[in-house]
Amino acid sequence: MKDHSTPTVTTGPLSASRKTHVVGQMHDIRVPMREIAVTGEPPLTVYDSSGPYTDPEARIDIARGLPRWRGAWLRQRGEVEECDPRPVAPADNGFAEGARLAPAFPVAHRPLRAAKGAVTQLAYARAGIITPEMEFVAIRENERRTAAHARDGEAFGAEIPDLVTPEFVRQEIAAGRAIIPANINHPELEPMIIGRNFKVKVNANIGNSAVTSGMAEEVEKMVWAIRWGADTVMDLSTGRNIHNIREWIIRNSPVPIGTVPMYQALEKVGGVAEALTWEIFRDTLIEQAEQGVDYFTIHAGLRLHMIPMTAKRVTGIVSRGGSIIAKWCLHHHRESFLYEHFDEICDIARAYDVSFSLGDGLRPGSIADANDEAQFAELRTLGKLTKIAWDKDCQVMIEGPGHVPMHKIKANVEEQLKHCHEAPFYTLGPLTTDIAPGYDHITSAIGAAMIGWFGTAMLCYVTPKEHLGLPDRDDVKTGVITYKLAAHAADLAKGHSGAQIRDDALSRARFEFRWEDQFNLGLDPDTAREMHDETMPKEAHKLAHFCSMCGPKFCSMKISHDIRAEADRQQGMEEMAEKYRDGGDLYIPAQEPAE
Amino acid sequence: MKDHSTPTVTTGPLSASRKTHVVGQMHDIRVPMREIAVTGEPPLTVYDSSGPYTDPEARIDIARGLPRWRGAWLRQRGEVEECDPRPVAPADNGFAEGARLAPAFPVAHRPLRAAKGAVTQLAYARAGIITPEMEFVAIRENERRTAAHARDGEAFGAEIPDLVTPEFVRQEIAAGRAIIPANINHPELEPMIIGRNFKVKVNANIGNSAVTSGMAEEVEKMVWAIRWGADTVMDLSTGRNIHNIREWIIRNSPVPIGTVPMYQALEKVGGVAEALTWEIFRDTLIEQAEQGVDYFTIHAGLRLHMIPMTAKRVTGIVSRGGSIIAKWCLHHHRESFLYEHFDEICDIARAYDVSFSLGDGLRPGSIADANDEAQFAELRTLGKLTKIAWDKDCQVMIEGPGHVPMHKIKANVEEQLKHCHEAPFYTLGPLTTDIAPGYDHITSAIGAAMIGWFGTAMLCYVTPKEHLGLPDRDDVKTGVITYKLAAHAADLAKGHSGAQIRDDALSRARFEFRWEDQFNLGLDPDTAREMHDETMPKEAHKLAHFCSMCGPKFCSMKISHDIRAEADRQQGMEEMAEKYRDGGDLYIPAQEPAE
Repeated sequence: MKDHSTPTVTTGPLSASRKTHVVGQMHDIRVPMREIAVTGEPPLTVYDSSGPYTDPEARIDIARGLPRWRGAWLRQRGEVEECDPRPVAPADNGFAEGARLAPAFPVAHRPLRAAKGAVTQLAYARAGIITPEMEFVAIRENERRTAAHARDGEAFGAEIPDLVTPEFVRQEIAAGRAIIPANINHPELEPMIIGRNFKVKVNANIGNSAVTSGMAEEVEKMVWAIRWGADTVMDLSTGRNIHNIREWIIRNSPVPIGTVPMYQALEKVGGVAEALTWEIFRDTLIEQAEQGVDYFTIHAGLRLHMIPMTAKRVTGIVSRGGSIIAKWCLHHHRESFLYEHFDEICDIARAYDVSFSLGDGLRPGSIADANDEAQFAELRTLGKLTKIAWDKDCQVMIEGPGHVPMHKIKANVEEQLKHCHEAPFYTLGPLTTDIAPGYDHITSAIGAAMIGWFGTAMLCYVTPKEHLGLPDRDDVKTGVITYKLAAHAADLAKGHSGAQIRDDALSRARFEFRWEDQFNLGLDPDTAREMHDETMPKEAHKLAHFCSMCGPKFCSMKISHDIRAEADRQQGMEEMAEKYRDGGDLYIPAQEPAE
Repeated sequence: MKDHSTPTVTTGPLSASRKTHVVGQMHDIRVPMREIAVTGEPPLTVYDSSGPYTDPEARIDIARGLPRWRGAWLRQRGEVEECDPRPVAPADNGFAEGARLAPAFPVAHRPLRAAKGAVTQLAYARAGIITPEMEFVAIRENERRTAAHARDGEAFGAEIPDLVTPEFVRQEIAAGRAIIPANINHPELEPMIIGRNFKVKVNANIGNSAVTSGMAEEVEKMVWAIRWGADTVMDLSTGRNIHNIREWIIRNSPVPIGTVPMYQALEKVGGVAEALTWEIFRDTLIEQAEQGVDYFTIHAGLRLHMIPMTAKRVTGIVSRGGSIIAKWCLHHHRESFLYEHFDEICDIARAYDVSFSLGDGLRPGSIADANDEAQFAELRTLGKLTKIAWDKDCQVMIEGPGHVPMHKIKANVEEQLKHCHEAPFYTLGPLTTDIAPGYDHITSAIGAAMIGWFGTAMLCYVTPKEHLGLPDRDDVKTGVITYKLAAHAADLAKGHSGAQIRDDALSRARFEFRWEDQFNLGLDPDTAREMHDETMPKEAHKLAHFCSMCGPKFCSMKISHDIRAEADRQQGMEEMAEKYRDGGDLYIPAQEPAE
């Protein structure tokens, strides 16, 4: 495995940025932040999902994995026990053999599980205990802010504090309004929180396609997505080597990893949906829980009687998980094993603290199918399952659509809040029109920004390749940046404390022609700089008090500065304002209309 | 000029499309439409802004210009007279000489002007006359629909008819709620309408940079923008050759051309704002009106007493026109000549039917400055100017921001409707965050879709290069497509009659694996096809009942079809639905929660 010891993933800080850490007060934790240097102003601290990969002082070796800092606390409390790992079976990797079998991760770790009962963040929150993870996310959300900032958003019932305290985090988790996806077998994690009283988060989907000799490129997809801001990553791999690829990803991931266990289960039965059994599915859950998957998408809300509701849809069932379950239900003429065994699924999840992302198997796949009977019937069932999961101390979020025209978006959040008891909402877009294949990151960013504003806690990205093909590296970056800007637009509109600080810093840089600052404070400094340099490549132009759009004579910002200077020279803007206000009639022309 | 006779602009139909025409009932008009061929379904007719360039039967020669079909009607009525053109002065082209002087358009036309009074669409509408332009846009808006379609949007007070009649168009124009920008000296025009009871429109900005030997590339920018759906084009040229370039553009443009006359006036005084005079500006208006400019942006609402209101802004004055006027006002300590001479400006506009786009010189340039005192003070003044213009029978629309967070967008439309008496609103974006330079087509598409939904009639596009550089050909296309999808999302949400027909057609194609139809029905068939072919290039794959994302085994749509087939074979979905509903308790598992 020696070839893996040389890091082949993207490392190094973002432009003008350096990694800093804030230490915990209650626990031995170091919370990473990104500091962006700004000319003539203090550095701006921003949320940092990128992990150790952007820290020049971190030693990256993907064949060893990231440092395993979590877990000591649980061990000290005697709440967990090591167990013998479930043996890896040939089916786990799609029966790949020989050269087609991806290498196993070089370092083996014995899995942990609860010694008894639940080891979930929800269980601890309910017991009044502030875990290291809770303190971690509290510090993280504050981005080094220490005071309230002016804000004027409309939060639609969300109650966003000026500053997040560990106790606030605990309360939100105890109430089920937020989750920290953090499997006890993922000690490499830098915890994050998903809830509508926190910053809106973004998920990026990755997944293997062809078999690769080294695993570096699989890890690189994850590293690349978090570099640009993905808060969680879902591994939607299909085909061969699912088990081994996932191990490489988790051992190197500082963000929560989500999966749809049904995908791997289906591989184990050769892709024949009706051949699936509870036993195979259960075994897959344990396999993945032991590896450290932080959240499972479970399509347990799709019940048999809902399937005919999709018969007259324009696009039927578009969720892969949903269609697999629907086929199984129809074939066997019974409720799915996900629904029938949901309490047992909870028992597995609580032993490892795997969070649930209750899947919307009947989400609409077109404008025509939005907010229909099938979609909302399933949503109400997800609300019932939420209660069952909460009774077992399991953390829950709820998946949402999909394709929804703008005027039907708000109803989705209202129905979800009502029927799912304020469990966090996690939506895919939604796309606000069907007519722009190739641009669905944009059709969906419109819906994502709006639904985030209304109360959705996490947005699953959509790339330009949606409906057309597998996203490549550029598509992943475009998808993540697009969703980061949508999530930020939502934070601004919700009046999230401090959200506007970055907008203001960038706008000041823009107004003062600090080009480098303008690039560095943006979500994608590299692209902004490249675009600027296409027309004004010279270094001197980075200091120019104008840009290529208008040139020096026409620059409105430059004129605006001249105006201020002139006004200051004359008598000060304030006085002038008074004078003009009082003496305004001096200048009223003949055609002045009546007030 | 022989080298211009070979067309060098982009011609030919869009993928699977052909040009058709609908003839008028009242006037001798032929309204262009685009028909998209669909497999197994009737062709879909869509709005077509692309002009004769996409008609294989049209003979394109940009040195001759497009056919001049308009004008006969006005001449027959004796309402217009030919006049000697204002002589072209060296200053009109920025004193360009010799090789630096762009060639004049080869064909001279004598300008028309009103024989007396107003020849505006508003004057005729008020007189109860349905013009050829009114009938043209009525037919155009209907896209061959002949019956009402189910729709369920929220229109916020807009009153969108099932079908547009010429009389409805006349009423909307007479009420000032809509405009048809159609200078009598632009007889090449295919008229379009801007108003909130019609389809939301999109404007693309172009403008020359360097001097070019032939003018084909300037014309090509316009042709390229309308090919992808731009409904109007603003020529924001600065520097030399403004006059000659504009002539080439207008003579070849089937869409309304807008300008900011202040830009050219400023060139005439060497870029020194304070040197501007009413006489120079007036002369520039006549120059451009005689050429056929369809709408003028006039920043007459920026009054002296408002300038100090911008002093504490983060980004001051960001409108170029606004900053020029502000500088002039401050220097001369008086109201601008635009404001003082607004009635004379109206007299010029009414003689040619140049519509006004009353400019928002104080629009916010950052999230921090949105909806501030300066912005709304100017907006109220624009409302007063609207009344003055209407008294002169001039058509008016109102420009709006800019940079606005989502929660402050609706107030912009509400204030505009209230203070500007329902004159059509025309906004730039707005951008919903400042932190994504390089992605501002997306930050602004979010705001544009929302403000379009709330009632904005036309959206001015923003390209990825906003704030960074001059858009190239790819940027123009990306900007136009992005804004077309935002405008369409707005039409859907408003419940615009028939808007969903295209979404449904595309979604049916998607569900039935008709890949070519899916590409062709989208806004950008070429990009969709390219993206698909990156992973599945073979022709046979275009017929495949799955795609590259999941492969055949995992395809949810395929499974959905299997489900339908299975259900049909068994007993029919309807019966099954009944059975499951009645017998649902058969399958209720042990942990079924109480209702």
